[in-house]
Amino acid sequence: MSTILIKNVNILTMNKDKDIIEKGVVFIKDEKIADVGNEALLDRYSPDIIIDGEDGILIPGMVNTHTHVSMTPFRSLGDDIPDRLKKYIFPLEKMLVDKELVKVGAKYGIVEMLLAGVTTFVDMYYFEDEVAKVAKKLGIRGVLGETIVNFVAPDAKEPYEGLEYSKWFIEKWKDDHLIIPGVAPHAPYTNDTIHLQKAMDLAKKYDIPMIMHVAEMDYEYRQYKEEYNLTPVQYLDHIGVLNKNLIAAHLVHVNDEDLELLKKKEVGIAHNVGANAKGAKGVCPAAKMYHKDMRIGLGTDGPMSGNTLDIITQMGLVGKIHKLFNKDRSLLPASEIVEMATIGGAKAIHLEKEIGSIEVGKKADLVIMETQSINMQPIYDYYATLVYSANTSNVDTVMVDGKILVENKKLKYVDVMEITKDLKNIQGKILEIVKKL
Amino acid sequence: MSTILIKNVNILTMNKDKDIIEKGVVFIKDEKIADVGNEALLDRYSPDIIIDGEDGILIPGMVNTHTHVSMTPFRSLGDDIPDRLKKYIFPLEKMLVDKELVKVGAKYGIVEMLLAGVTTFVDMYYFEDEVAKVAKKLGIRGVLGETIVNFVAPDAKEPYEGLEYSKWFIEKWKDDHLIIPGVAPHAPYTNDTIHLQKAMDLAKKYDIPMIMHVAEMDYEYRQYKEEYNLTPVQYLDHIGVLNKNLIAAHLVHVNDEDLELLKKKEVGIAHNVGANAKGAKGVCPAAKMYHKDMRIGLGTDGPMSGNTLDIITQMGLVGKIHKLFNKDRSLLPASEIVEMATIGGAKAIHLEKEIGSIEVGKKADLVIMETQSINMQPIYDYYATLVYSANTSNVDTVMVDGKILVENKKLKYVDVMEITKDLKNIQGKILEIVKKL
Repeated sequence: MSTILIKNVNILTMNKDKDIIEKGVVFIKDEKIADVGNEALLDRYSPDIIIDGEDGILIPGMVNTHTHVSMTPFRSLGDDIPDRLKKYIFPLEKMLVDKELVKVGAKYGIVEMLLAGVTTFVDMYYFEDEVAKVAKKLGIRGVLGETIVNFVAPDAKEPYEGLEYSKWFIEKWKDDHLIIPGVAPHAPYTNDTIHLQKAMDLAKKYDIPMIMHVAEMDYEYRQYKEEYNLTPVQYLDHIGVLNKNLIAAHLVHVNDEDLELLKKKEVGIAHNVGANAKGAKGVCPAAKMYHKDMRIGLGTDGPMSGNTLDIITQMGLVGKIHKLFNKDRSLLPASEIVEMATIGGAKAIHLEKEIGSIEVGKKADLVIMETQSINMQPIYDYYATLVYSANTSNVDTVMVDGKILVENKKLKYVDVMEITKDLKNIQGKILEIVKKL
Repeated sequence: MSTILIKNVNILTMNKDKDIIEKGVVFIKDEKIADVGNEALLDRYSPDIIIDGEDGILIPGMVNTHTHVSMTPFRSLGDDIPDRLKKYIFPLEKMLVDKELVKVGAKYGIVEMLLAGVTTFVDMYYFEDEVAKVAKKLGIRGVLGETIVNFVAPDAKEPYEGLEYSKWFIEKWKDDHLIIPGVAPHAPYTNDTIHLQKAMDLAKKYDIPMIMHVAEMDYEYRQYKEEYNLTPVQYLDHIGVLNKNLIAAHLVHVNDEDLELLKKKEVGIAHNVGANAKGAKGVCPAAKMYHKDMRIGLGTDGPMSGNTLDIITQMGLVGKIHKLFNKDRSLLPASEIVEMATIGGAKAIHLEKEIGSIEVGKKADLVIMETQSINMQPIYDYYATLVYSANTSNVDTVMVDGKILVENKKLKYVDVMEITKDLKNIQGKILEIVKKL
């Protein structure tokens, strides 16, 4: 594999001290970051490939800690409809979701993520093996779980069939370099106790993540209070599935005791600020979580909820919404938000030893944000520029495991026209069904 | 002047019925929209220029109802610092703001707005004549006012000198085709009653806008309650400056009675959702205002507050923040947000007879949003795509008064490199001062 040297970049290392190296240099060898420093490194190496960052900002690849990537074919459908999940999404999925849709949706969404600087994503959906194959082929890192629910699903003739699928799926992918299989019960309110426990047993057996929506819905909170006099988080602890294997998405309806429990059990947190806001679900206490040094990263949720799959948009929202809700403009300054988008996300999925910062020995998952575009100047504070000014069009170069996937804002190995054509075919079928809804 | 025909676009007319014309055609003659319809129009005209919209979305040019464009040289400086206005911005301005900075900042910011599909902006700052000259030259429509304050300002050796400047400025620009001069007292709490009244007298004399920050600050609300037992809005009414000449920015701290007053007096409203959120100022009751059929448009505020100067980012924020605060995901659906960004903005500045919708007889201020980029597909609802998925990089073509200013995402008549160089020179000077702060 070629050695690569990146020069002329302003490196936000996102290491413990948040060191910034201006006119920085990174040397990449055998898929990993082999050296990080200033221009003095230029004389030390004879790389196969040199990338001139043109005074851009080099950041660790961003982590999308929660999505349903294959839902891209449904994007912009029924965005402003109340109680959409049960009235709209579940029926649509039942009628339309098959292997082909999952494959096409995954391709499209993964391409979107790569172009936006997301190098690792956490996904749960149906036919998840299709997502895994596409992710592997496109070169993105994926933490992927098959959805388990208590009703008949697109790829399950009986309730809870997802559990059997998961066993097969995990065996198939458990030794892969890029794909980390998980197990993904949809939510506490769509799984009974015994199946939640079985799912966690599986996660523990292989030491893989259990991905689940937790405390997203107000009715979920009320239900557990009425039925058990427990919060959803306390209930999960009570049945023994609250531990470090869990990646909990949303956590909107949680109290201070829940936070203590989640911290103690080292649960990973996927904070989906945009989707939660658009869905009027409420606000996850992300600032408190951050200040308690919990494992919190950012997620987009699926494209029917969060629409775009990039983390840059979420960074812009995190600051604004939490400052506003807490009436404190100094809360969660930009550097802490970039932290959530990178090393925070890595911590949320327990991969912080491998990804999430620009340090020697870590996997070379890297993103160069260009600073030539009009929205990116002037820069007094790199973090503020990323959080308050950048958008996805500023992503210039993206690398996963030391492989350059995006160069000059274009995918190197993918024909986007072809992928868009496939998406539009599927869209035609969806339109036929939607007309009848 | 050349006649222009735009074809192969999906037209969001933003007329009263919100008509949408797919595969639409617009014919432009003498700076105005001369015809709007479907493909049948293709045979009717022999235009000088034909623009193929390539299945993009054609919308009225967006209106930025509130900014301080010349503050672009300060962008990304001190974003997360509390009580910034008095501790940070005012001192910095006093030391640094001169004609040159205003000119360079205006150039840079106006270029940014044009590239982002903003065709009309409302601005208040110092040396506003420099802004007017730059706006005129670059071809953007501007409603511009010189700031009037009760202290020594960058261009005023004595308090309230801005009033004299305004008289001269208004006389200079009052008959211009593109620039609408206004008068701009900074805020009720930085102007005494007599000067607020004098400013409004001037606005009435010429029938031009009076631009002012109103009810933005919590201390402002408390001060008027204590001093007069009135809200800031009631106070303005009490002293006779609440009327249709007023464009009031922010209106965060207002009660239901204030809304009735504002509606009755036909006050224009600039809703700066992003800047208000980031500054932890609170939430303007924009949904209520919209439902009361008030004159509400969107604004960015200055680039030290709102950072980017585009309205697309604000559209994305409006939905999320108001749905969240009102716990209703169906509140302010995407079409109503696009309305605020276009015809709503035009109403806020009392130009709705001339701009803000795609109707015969209106000025040809138009924007084509391309739909080829990965974030823009699939489309089931054009409005949702614009509000929940689009970003500034999707702006393809921008026209003001029938003159094409942006084509294929590039400015036709401006050297962006040159403008960026000027900005970086100014940034160097700012850095010297900031070090000493």
